[in-house]
Amino acid sequence: MLTRADCLSLDASHQRLAAFAARFAPGAPDTIYLDANSVGPMPVAAAERVMQVLDQGWRVSRRRSWNETDWLDQPRTLGAALAPVLGAAPGDVLVADTTTLNQHKLLHFALSIQAPRNVVVVEHEVFPSNRYAAQAAVALRGACLRDVGDATGLSQALAPGDVAVVALSLVDYRSSVRLDLRGLTALAHTQGALVLWDLSHAAGAVEVALEASGVDFAVGCGYKYLCGGPGAPAWLYVHPRHRESGAWPALAGWMGHADTFSFRPDYEPAAGVLRHLSGTPPVIAHAAMAAAAEIWREVDPQALNDRHGSLTDTLIRLVEEQCGPLGISVASPLAHAQRGGHVALRLEHAADDGDVGALAQALVEAGVVVSSRKPDALRLAPHPLVTRHLELWEAVARLRELLQSGRWRDPRYRRAAV
Amino acid sequence: MLTRADCLSLDASHQRLAAFAARFAPGAPDTIYLDANSVGPMPVAAAERVMQVLDQGWRVSRRRSWNETDWLDQPRTLGAALAPVLGAAPGDVLVADTTTLNQHKLLHFALSIQAPRNVVVVEHEVFPSNRYAAQAAVALRGACLRDVGDATGLSQALAPGDVAVVALSLVDYRSSVRLDLRGLTALAHTQGALVLWDLSHAAGAVEVALEASGVDFAVGCGYKYLCGGPGAPAWLYVHPRHRESGAWPALAGWMGHADTFSFRPDYEPAAGVLRHLSGTPPVIAHAAMAAAAEIWREVDPQALNDRHGSLTDTLIRLVEEQCGPLGISVASPLAHAQRGGHVALRLEHAADDGDVGALAQALVEAGVVVSSRKPDALRLAPHPLVTRHLELWEAVARLRELLQSGRWRDPRYRRAAV
Repeated sequence: MLTRADCLSLDASHQRLAAFAARFAPGAPDTIYLDANSVGPMPVAAAERVMQVLDQGWRVSRRRSWNETDWLDQPRTLGAALAPVLGAAPGDVLVADTTTLNQHKLLHFALSIQAPRNVVVVEHEVFPSNRYAAQAAVALRGACLRDVGDATGLSQALAPGDVAVVALSLVDYRSSVRLDLRGLTALAHTQGALVLWDLSHAAGAVEVALEASGVDFAVGCGYKYLCGGPGAPAWLYVHPRHRESGAWPALAGWMGHADTFSFRPDYEPAAGVLRHLSGTPPVIAHAAMAAAAEIWREVDPQALNDRHGSLTDTLIRLVEEQCGPLGISVASPLAHAQRGGHVALRLEHAADDGDVGALAQALVEAGVVVSSRKPDALRLAPHPLVTRHLELWEAVARLRELLQSGRWRDPRYRRAAV
Repeated sequence: MLTRADCLSLDASHQRLAAFAARFAPGAPDTIYLDANSVGPMPVAAAERVMQVLDQGWRVSRRRSWNETDWLDQPRTLGAALAPVLGAAPGDVLVADTTTLNQHKLLHFALSIQAPRNVVVVEHEVFPSNRYAAQAAVALRGACLRDVGDATGLSQALAPGDVAVVALSLVDYRSSVRLDLRGLTALAHTQGALVLWDLSHAAGAVEVALEASGVDFAVGCGYKYLCGGPGAPAWLYVHPRHRESGAWPALAGWMGHADTFSFRPDYEPAAGVLRHLSGTPPVIAHAAMAAAAEIWREVDPQALNDRHGSLTDTLIRLVEEQCGPLGISVASPLAHAQRGGHVALRLEHAADDGDVGALAQALVEAGVVVSSRKPDALRLAPHPLVTRHLELWEAVARLRELLQSGRWRDPRYRRAAV
């Protein structure tokens, strides 16, 4: 049995990234945050950077800031800062817009590159917004959608040789099952298809090697493990092999023009990934994101992955040992390489799909911030730069207490759950 | 001749909106901000609201804020707050994404509604990003672009009866020429075309009556006169007559689904304008925007328009009287109803198109924050809730001094100009 002392000892032995924890602001007292899959922790520098933009950039300098600061460069410089943790070259990543909008951009870009191929393959159970983007993109251009139940159906879906692009999510948002980034990319390529990956539930948690895996396109969320702040801009990636493509971006705008301030009447795509910029950048949001970016510039992706593995392996073992007999099982794969950022637990013998929400709410009120997804997934997401093994011990102890006492069945938790 | 005392007296006589000035933070000492066409003034409440979201919403509450606060409602509630100053019903305006992305959304939406009509009419000299959006939209769906030199060519462009949508900018970003919102909308309608207006250089400065003018669709910038902060989210408007349309939004996403949190695999558009939401809202940016929104909820659009008219009429008269003989002319229309937010001045006898930038830079260094657009437009944009007539007197005095002394020709201004 893993003990509290073992957790302390694991914290002592994982020192490579330990200094980063101090660069994040502490949350509420006696609260354990296992919700980095929803909103990651706040860098200490975020408040100061945002206040600087508000006071000096907005109140005092006003329009001069467009010319005299880095406001217009930030989509590129923030992207470059995230590049190492994504396994990408600095010039191939942009911070811009939202994950869903970036899905639209890159689906259309892939379809333009691949014409006359016009089939988009998408999983039936993927995060719904990704499906909606694919459905709308094919509707718009008279292309075709081909559903696969999950990634195991990919070979068959690719077999006709007519697939333009496969849109996959690396990590399932419920179970945390992580797909084989390199293997599935290669599989698609053997059939002439390009691949667009959504890395929202992996980037900033586990190592992802975009360029080495041959990934064509990727997008991801900025506000989960990447700690850009609630609703932070998302990111997008285009592999160097597509840098010289002449294809237009679907959502062309002045910030993606080859020469924005010439104000020429005709659109001409900027080089490489830059053409996927569109409107004016969200400066205030970028100030918060910049606080996270200056941390990511320094993080070794392998060390991040190792610490995440140790944390989530520990969490799984603690849950199995302490809560297994109480009707909780681990719904995520046991091997770290097959998991994304969070660990999903399953509440056995749930009366209905309101039970998991009630249990999550009871945990939140006991100071363990988690989330749930119907019908039965309880999601626990440590952050590899901030969470300590000892916190996992404490979180599981609180979960055990709720299960042993049956307190979580109090109807008020079910009413409060959303 | 208009005197300094006249300006003081005008300030004393325009008291209806005078209380609003105190709700904006003062800028740098001895600095006159005439750049509301680029970045509007900062509401005092903005910093506190943003800090509240950072500290309580992000640091402490983390993912609970999605459920326990209004974060997900803000695109709608902020839109409703802007609706009065846009002449729209509260339920027909959303705050979302960028002006350019909203152009894309509504161009595609119009084309979907109007099928099989597939011609988009756009001005040759409109703000380039609007053209890029139109060019990319027609390229994507195999539709057609029809250029008009300017709005006077509209009748002829509409004559074939094949136009799906006309995309116009209400105010020219250089000259500030304002088009006839109601008249041109009606003209397009007589030929079965819909109209998409860009109100970036009008909204928050002059009265625009979207619904009463029969406008189908409109978009605009959030960070100019509307004071949402640098790079603030933009807004979009859809007329009630299109509320019940079954057409899909081009950029479908989970926030525009009829039942987002059912996580259904198939897209179904939300009611009315809400379908044009796409990804997760930018929460930190919205906190700043909310400070402006609480002001706009209270502003009487007619009083706003009157005060803007008085300010810009005064500015024009001061420039004509004091700087006319020094080689400056007014490039904007003299009638307020034919002008947008700013007043454009022309530097006569410019040696080349670097001169106007040098003059703008010299003014900035003299404490008058203005902007320029090549080849010859100097742009002065008071804010109707903040700028005083007396400030215009002082700004024109500084302009006159620069022209009289010839100091603006110092090469360092040209070098510093961007």
